[in-house]
Amino acid sequence: MSDFRFDYNRDADMFALKKTRATEGLTASPGTPVPGFGPRDVIVAVTHTGICGTDRHIYEWDAWSAKRIPLGITTGHEFVGRVVAVGDAVEHVRPGDRVSAEGHIGCGQCEPCRTGNAHICDKVDILGIDVDGCFAQFVRVPEQNIWPVHPAISNSIASIFDPLGNAMHTVMAAGVSGRSVLITGVGIIGLMAVTIARAAGAGQIIVADVNDQRLAIARELGAGLALRTDDPDWVGEARKATAHDVGPAVLLEMSGHPAAIRGGFAALRNGGTAALLGLPSNPVAMDLPNDIIFKGATVLGINGRRMFETWFQMENFLLSGRINLEPIITHHMPIAAFDRAFKLMQKGEAIKVVLTVPENEDLV
Amino acid sequence: MSDFRFDYNRDADMFALKKTRATEGLTASPGTPVPGFGPRDVIVAVTHTGICGTDRHIYEWDAWSAKRIPLGITTGHEFVGRVVAVGDAVEHVRPGDRVSAEGHIGCGQCEPCRTGNAHICDKVDILGIDVDGCFAQFVRVPEQNIWPVHPAISNSIASIFDPLGNAMHTVMAAGVSGRSVLITGVGIIGLMAVTIARAAGAGQIIVADVNDQRLAIARELGAGLALRTDDPDWVGEARKATAHDVGPAVLLEMSGHPAAIRGGFAALRNGGTAALLGLPSNPVAMDLPNDIIFKGATVLGINGRRMFETWFQMENFLLSGRINLEPIITHHMPIAAFDRAFKLMQKGEAIKVVLTVPENEDLV
Amino acid sequence: MSDFRFDYNRDADMFALKKTRATEGLTASPGTPVPGFGPRDVIVAVTHTGICGTDRHIYEWDAWSAKRIPLGITTGHEFVGRVVAVGDAVEHVRPGDRVSAEGHIGCGQCEPCRTGNAHICDKVDILGIDVDGCFAQFVRVPEQNIWPVHPAISNSIASIFDPLGNAMHTVMAAGVSGRSVLITGVGIIGLMAVTIARAAGAGQIIVADVNDQRLAIARELGAGLALRTDDPDWVGEARKATAHDVGPAVLLEMSGHPAAIRGGFAALRNGGTAALLGLPSNPVAMDLPNDIIFKGATVLGINGRRMFETWFQMENFLLSGRINLEPIITHHMPIAAFDRAFKLMQKGEAIKVVLTVPENEDLV
Amino acid sequence: MSDFRFDYNRDADMFALKKTRATEGLTASPGTPVPGFGPRDVIVAVTHTGICGTDRHIYEWDAWSAKRIPLGITTGHEFVGRVVAVGDAVEHVRPGDRVSAEGHIGCGQCEPCRTGNAHICDKVDILGIDVDGCFAQFVRVPEQNIWPVHPAISNSIASIFDPLGNAMHTVMAAGVSGRSVLITGVGIIGLMAVTIARAAGAGQIIVADVNDQRLAIARELGAGLALRTDDPDWVGEARKATAHDVGPAVLLEMSGHPAAIRGGFAALRNGGTAALLGLPSNPVAMDLPNDIIFKGATVLGINGRRMFETWFQMENFLLSGRINLEPIITHHMPIAAFDRAFKLMQKGEAIKVVLTVPENEDLV
Repeated sequence: MSDFRFDYNRDADMFALKKTRATEGLTASPGTPVPGFGPRDVIVAVTHTGICGTDRHIYEWDAWSAKRIPLGITTGHEFVGRVVAVGDAVEHVRPGDRVSAEGHIGCGQCEPCRTGNAHICDKVDILGIDVDGCFAQFVRVPEQNIWPVHPAISNSIASIFDPLGNAMHTVMAAGVSGRSVLITGVGIIGLMAVTIARAAGAGQIIVADVNDQRLAIARELGAGLALRTDDPDWVGEARKATAHDVGPAVLLEMSGHPAAIRGGFAALRNGGTAALLGLPSNPVAMDLPNDIIFKGATVLGINGRRMFETWFQMENFLLSGRINLEPIITHHMPIAAFDRAFKLMQKGEAIKVVLTVPENEDLV
Repeated sequence: MSDFRFDYNRDADMFALKKTRATEGLTASPGTPVPGFGPRDVIVAVTHTGICGTDRHIYEWDAWSAKRIPLGITTGHEFVGRVVAVGDAVEHVRPGDRVSAEGHIGCGQCEPCRTGNAHICDKVDILGIDVDGCFAQFVRVPEQNIWPVHPAISNSIASIFDPLGNAMHTVMAAGVSGRSVLITGVGIIGLMAVTIARAAGAGQIIVADVNDQRLAIARELGAGLALRTDDPDWVGEARKATAHDVGPAVLLEMSGHPAAIRGGFAALRNGGTAALLGLPSNPVAMDLPNDIIFKGATVLGINGRRMFETWFQMENFLLSGRINLEPIITHHMPIAAFDRAFKLMQKGEAIKVVLTVPENEDLV
Repeated sequence: MSDFRFDYNRDADMFALKKTRATEGLTASPGTPVPGFGPRDVIVAVTHTGICGTDRHIYEWDAWSAKRIPLGITTGHEFVGRVVAVGDAVEHVRPGDRVSAEGHIGCGQCEPCRTGNAHICDKVDILGIDVDGCFAQFVRVPEQNIWPVHPAISNSIASIFDPLGNAMHTVMAAGVSGRSVLITGVGIIGLMAVTIARAAGAGQIIVADVNDQRLAIARELGAGLALRTDDPDWVGEARKATAHDVGPAVLLEMSGHPAAIRGGFAALRNGGTAALLGLPSNPVAMDLPNDIIFKGATVLGINGRRMFETWFQMENFLLSGRINLEPIITHHMPIAAFDRAFKLMQKGEAIKVVLTVPENEDLV
Repeated sequence: MSDFRFDYNRDADMFALKKTRATEGLTASPGTPVPGFGPRDVIVAVTHTGICGTDRHIYEWDAWSAKRIPLGITTGHEFVGRVVAVGDAVEHVRPGDRVSAEGHIGCGQCEPCRTGNAHICDKVDILGIDVDGCFAQFVRVPEQNIWPVHPAISNSIASIFDPLGNAMHTVMAAGVSGRSVLITGVGIIGLMAVTIARAAGAGQIIVADVNDQRLAIARELGAGLALRTDDPDWVGEARKATAHDVGPAVLLEMSGHPAAIRGGFAALRNGGTAALLGLPSNPVAMDLPNDIIFKGATVLGINGRRMFETWFQMENFLLSGRINLEPIITHHMPIAAFDRAFKLMQKGEAIKVVLTVPENEDLV
């Protein structure tokens, strides 16, 4: 795109989805001023943007959202698009580049930020949560957070790097190569974890959830055994599915439900590794001696994505062609149809919905 | 000791401390038959034996003991002594050898047992808990569990390899070299962890407890800051004692107290490592998102000692001369004075008590 | 096999293949006394035994063999069979068990032996090299080295656990999950490494050799690119086959040829890992600054198998059904036809030959 | 320094030490234009700058320098100073800040650069080698490379973070806590490695060199045994100094001399770790089977410093007060006396020389 030209008019308005009222819903806001930008910022014209479970929390205005989200913000943090403007001091990104971005914006000075762990910076700002996000025609991102998308990767997939990176981070931190794996909770990220674990060399993959449709997709993506967590013996079944009945070597906890967490730890083999991504709403009563200490278990807290190790891992896996996201991205629809999209998610008819931005369709 | 001779009379009686009644106390049992032995077993004449906190639980017959300990058993699991008899198939141990032993007797067949992790074998038997222990003139141990004591290591120290190994395992699993460390709970093992962490290259060492005497000893052993956990701001103080106030990089949890566990996790820096050794009596309500997940923390369950990696580590550290156990071993007394020893521990006047066995004093 | 009965006559003779003369060949020795055994030993009736490249060196009596192998020894170290006798102190193995064995017999006392690394014991004895091996009707093995074979694993595969374990150890030590891999040298172990790397989650797999037939099999087993090392630009091609042309993240060196070693290091990406298994005959001139130091490379020396971590890994991978050894085991023939087997290997017509022992065929 | 004011005149001249002729020496160049700067650059007024072994190579114009160094460049890469000007897009650095800097300037886009490993970026530019360095009144550095110096760290030490970081990187990559360590070559970085290894928890520290003065300093800094590499039995002595004579668990190779490299590998225990920092001038004939493969050794190529993990490690260690650099920094002298400084180094009378910049003395 060496001859790319785009006139980014700083005085123009754009379409954006904002959280303007403390009730369910988002507000379509066509008269939103386009974002300004500083010398190290990049403006991206969003072409595709994914709806995250977090966006649904914000849409529904649950207790967490009410506490965390400032009214007036433009939501959304998963996207791909085309760079249309860059600040004077931007060095590596040029207009025309097809890019996605890491949504965790670190302080840049602390030890996590300067050692590839900005996702655990204490002062992190998150796109679409703390600062204006990508459910809009244009989004501003610091150059440091920009990820250039490899030409061989589709826009659908590039628009959901954020949750795919959550799954990738969890799977790679736990280390599944040659090991049996139990995944509790096969929502969007849990399903992604199934296909990644399969590609990353996991042995037996066991999934546990209460949703038969999701369990069926997990089977399709490579899980060898699908258990319902309302089956009172699911923990025993999970153990019996592993060699010598010792239990899975790895637990990927993606549900946030106390019962699934406790069941997962009970199933875990001695010396095993548990990676926790799901967020329980309340404190969980943990039997530390039996679940962790006597077991000699390793427990890993996972959030975000390592910057940018996880992103390079995603690129490598996607280029190898062995990750299957087809059954996970169930819907594409224009951004104006956002209400319908959220309803489909609420009814369980959609898994991952990718919204497209008609205003930018000639930039795809 | 190439000319060592000892006539082990299989029909003789010996002195032993047994748990014979479901009440506080142990029973001095002078007419106990000496242990028999199979082809792969070793008989050790015990010269010194340490009293563990676990022994005190058994002595006091708490709820855990009542559930776990079979009446009639000879207690004790920390010792050093002289080999006096070996089975026909014993290969590497000879009468006259000065030895200690690993008290976890694994099944020998499972994956943990065959990969240096017998301490987490599901069928493990523990000396003095599941099988007759070392509070006696003689103890039987499988050859596989025997540890030959280096000539440069004293009997006092060799008699407490077991708890020293707990501390060593915890410190080395967490990895303290160049990192700030918080130790919650400075009982026997916590104090050992202080001197080991110092020798192992820890940066700032912070300890937290409610016992001023123990805190003072921790300072003497290398802790730079000693905090009382009943100080409402101890968590903040712990964080402020580290560079840029980020909190300690390592938590060694050795108290088993819910409040200390929660405080320890609250103090832990993002990306830090928590190693859990202390055993809470009841489930602990954990704030998984804030304590582990958002922090990107690593939590390690620790019990026993790696077999035998931890033992080689102890030998290396002890030979380097940079571990100080002097302030920890406060008392030596003859085994017949066991009641007094337990009372001293209960009153907090003793830390680690080493019992000597007069019958074997010519073998020292 | 609970009703298994076998009368092991300690005075009988058996068939064995011995190295009796310092020239090419092995000697069929039908009047060889059966092995005696000590209290901790196991006698296995060999049903299937693989021919290793090392056996071929001994057969051909090369310089290494002349220096290392004592004349008169029974050769062979890869096998599966049925236990027919056990010493009095054997605990976990019984007559009738179908077993293979680890051929590295450690001293049992040193740090490597006591920490799961007996393969690097300084005093190790190797079956068929230092002590009588398994090219015979019966072989004696210490109980400690016995590996019980899972019922779901075939005898053909169980007879070659030894080289499969070399490949497994190499792949798992290097860590291939999600990483691009270059394998230099696709002899028996190199080919095994291809299928294991594929199952273990490698990204792009590149192989380099001079043998078109082997390269074709490597492609069949999952290699995405096969290069001839006599192509002057093979190193550049290997780099170009990886994302952003940075070169493979992992080098598995299985040729022992200086040119391949140097080419492999030249191809390796910065920060990559090289695992060395192939044994060069002479010192290799290494460009340490460019090949290792400036690259920030990690180089791992690999021999044998971790005891017994590697064996459990093999079991897990084989049970998962995702390793393909079909194209590697090209021939089965009776042990008496050993000369023909070695000739087939010399001519390159055979890859892995499994010899069967007719005398034990009713034990299969 | 909130009220810091400095008028950086972009048209002024300054003093600099340049390499202007292809012979021994550097040229004092008082009329050098001060560096300009871009929007993301920082200008530092150098107050203290260390002379590196690399600077001596350039001074002496050896074969490496002749190939690598562009004539006309300002040399030097170790420094501390005061920020006097910043570009418009600089975010975290302000005039008045006391700073040092990482001298490896990565491309910012590749995987190493974006994962904390810019020191192994393929396109790295090094200060004082590829771009103008710090033997000058002012030096320009990109903000990304700036390291703010903790107030508790002296200017002398802050001026030599670069070599201290080499030593830190080597020691921490190898992992010395509780392990015996052999350091071959105790030049500046080798001596730093001694004090760091001691602070980081090494067991026995053995050093080997041909310079008695350096060996004596190494002893003072914590080495327990100092060997001369011209003693024909030094390798055996090194092994005997470790428990059970197995050899050191860690080799830190800092000499670059083939004989020391070979001796170091010969001494290394089975399963040990060798970290290579010293740069041999020519290929080294390596006995790969005996030195690396049969040993199951791990070899790490080390250069530069991890960005910025190593820098945080330095800060932590320095703040803990357990690193002793006193005997290493032997001389401070004004930058104009550079010729005398190099001569002192050549004669072996100086170890580390810190040059001061009189023009900036009021900024100290």
